[in-house]
Amino acid sequence: MTTPRPPRPDTRPGRIMTREMAQQPEVLRRILDEGAPRIRRIADAIAARDPRFVLLTARGTSDNAALYAKYLIEVLLGKPAGLTSMSTTTAYGARPDLTDVLVITVSQSGGSPDLVASTRTAREAGAITLAVTNNADSPLAAVSEFHIDVLAGPEKALPATKTYTAELLALFLLVEGLRGGDGSATKALPELAEQILARQPEVRTLAARYRFAERLVLTSRGYGYPTAKEAALKLMETSYIPALSFSGADLLHGPLAMVDNVSPVIAIVPEGKGGLALQPVLDRLRGRGADLVVIGSEREVRQASAGFVLPTAEVAEEVQPILEIIPLQLLAYEITIARGQDPDAPRALAKVTETR
Amino acid sequence: MTTPRPPRPDTRPGRIMTREMAQQPEVLRRILDEGAPRIRRIADAIAARDPRFVLLTARGTSDNAALYAKYLIEVLLGKPAGLTSMSTTTAYGARPDLTDVLVITVSQSGGSPDLVASTRTAREAGAITLAVTNNADSPLAAVSEFHIDVLAGPEKALPATKTYTAELLALFLLVEGLRGGDGSATKALPELAEQILARQPEVRTLAARYRFAERLVLTSRGYGYPTAKEAALKLMETSYIPALSFSGADLLHGPLAMVDNVSPVIAIVPEGKGGLALQPVLDRLRGRGADLVVIGSEREVRQASAGFVLPTAEVAEEVQPILEIIPLQLLAYEITIARGQDPDAPRALAKVTETR
Repeated sequence: MTTPRPPRPDTRPGRIMTREMAQQPEVLRRILDEGAPRIRRIADAIAARDPRFVLLTARGTSDNAALYAKYLIEVLLGKPAGLTSMSTTTAYGARPDLTDVLVITVSQSGGSPDLVASTRTAREAGAITLAVTNNADSPLAAVSEFHIDVLAGPEKALPATKTYTAELLALFLLVEGLRGGDGSATKALPELAEQILARQPEVRTLAARYRFAERLVLTSRGYGYPTAKEAALKLMETSYIPALSFSGADLLHGPLAMVDNVSPVIAIVPEGKGGLALQPVLDRLRGRGADLVVIGSEREVRQASAGFVLPTAEVAEEVQPILEIIPLQLLAYEITIARGQDPDAPRALAKVTETR
Repeated sequence: MTTPRPPRPDTRPGRIMTREMAQQPEVLRRILDEGAPRIRRIADAIAARDPRFVLLTARGTSDNAALYAKYLIEVLLGKPAGLTSMSTTTAYGARPDLTDVLVITVSQSGGSPDLVASTRTAREAGAITLAVTNNADSPLAAVSEFHIDVLAGPEKALPATKTYTAELLALFLLVEGLRGGDGSATKALPELAEQILARQPEVRTLAARYRFAERLVLTSRGYGYPTAKEAALKLMETSYIPALSFSGADLLHGPLAMVDNVSPVIAIVPEGKGGLALQPVLDRLRGRGADLVVIGSEREVRQASAGFVLPTAEVAEEVQPILEIIPLQLLAYEITIARGQDPDAPRALAKVTETR
């Protein structure tokens, strides 16, 4: 008599990152169903205090989510906002007067000591403090007056994926709450995220062209710019390809000199004003013979060397970043696999980065 | 009878950039002698209005000068500050309430239409507007309530050098004025800049190691971080080597995976708190076997693979960036010459970049 053998553990490279990318539709759904009412209550409490200025503090992937929130705050709330240079507090001991200032700290783990220290300092300096994390029991949540849980579930892969899109959606709902919007722009996101994930074979084909790329340039404008930065970070930490990201306008101020007919460029072209503002940059890139791959509408992809058509024709521009990043996460994964490396185990990285 | 032949015009590659780098000591002297009293009067007028927040707007090299000013404002003035995302105004039509906000726009030419438009909008929205430019007759100076001329004289080379150090010094003197300081930390700068420029042969030797580099990583922390960003920009626009810049803390959050024993890293190690905060990053880089070149003190250079010793032992940390960048400008120049290219004529660049 033979006892059944236990199933063989899955040991394929990148299986953890794959699983977490695939969870994104369900995480987005959970935030909309369970998270949204709590986010709305926090937004109401903060709106009642009427902050004049918003400062955002974060590092790594969460810093790109914070940059997205900065665009939302400036455009949708009409409030001046800035990203903090954390070392001014932690290394130089700066103690600005933060009365009437909302300080939003974004961190997947909520555990980085410098974020905790700078948030504590901000609170002592009179700021309204809000932590946005994936860990309600974290030290960062504990030192902040308000806390939004992004409800992404444990993230084990070193390259953050589902916590990024979760942070974006939570931050969008926060800003919607602050301005009294109804959040209806977000309804279709989980379904559309599923559609994008189902097209992984398309991304695999696209990844083949980067098998031997020695560098990549990513560009976008407006709401798409945080996507370009996050995609560059994902590519660097998984595939180790140096990936430079520029806002389209900054690309024309110098770095364009690097781009020639063997330089791969990936442009994220939002449907809306950001995409329109990017057009002169795309024209210049085409004029220089760049290998231009576009993540955007069918019309934009047709004018490029190759691309990935986003299903965002009916999606408000300000929530498109929640979808745009997904094919680029898949791309980082597929390039890394194609190069024979393991996206789950980038060399040199730890999940909680203890910078001070 | 023969008439004397006119002298042959100088046609060596990089002669314009060389001349302008060499003018930096005299420009710094001019700002201290002629510019400082006027900057002080402007600072007094702004201080009387007691702004609560400062927003900085710029692109390219001037954006790195603006980032330096952000550190000064947060640390020395204790005021919250942010860099604007210009497209929120120019592409998305954001109209934040800017009462009590000081908006500083930094631009060499003062001619970029988007900077002029966003500054005009800021002034209409109630901001105190200050332009910092190298052209008193520029449209940007005209639309701003206050204007500081950085007095660098005409800049003809496409890679900006003397206007960068001039912007840094003018911005430092502005902040000194706003806080009622005496500016004494700046006295030695022209002389020290001369000493650094005289050591160009040392930099030429250092440049040889990057003859075949396919990428570069630059890092620093605190006041040195804008130097890392500006050095990366200079390297990209002259030599076309992709150069990635990270604050030391961000480098540990992901991009460190790219660094291995064939990856060249240049660290700018300020003497002071920024340099101290960078130590754990330097340890990690040494641990990964990176080729680490240090711009910093003799002690730091000795612990690295190679470097350039800065004469900054007696210089306040907050003005060190005005000197730190000079060996890196020389390095960008020397690498470009070594690769047989002309630093004066980067492909694809125009001096006034007309982004909208």
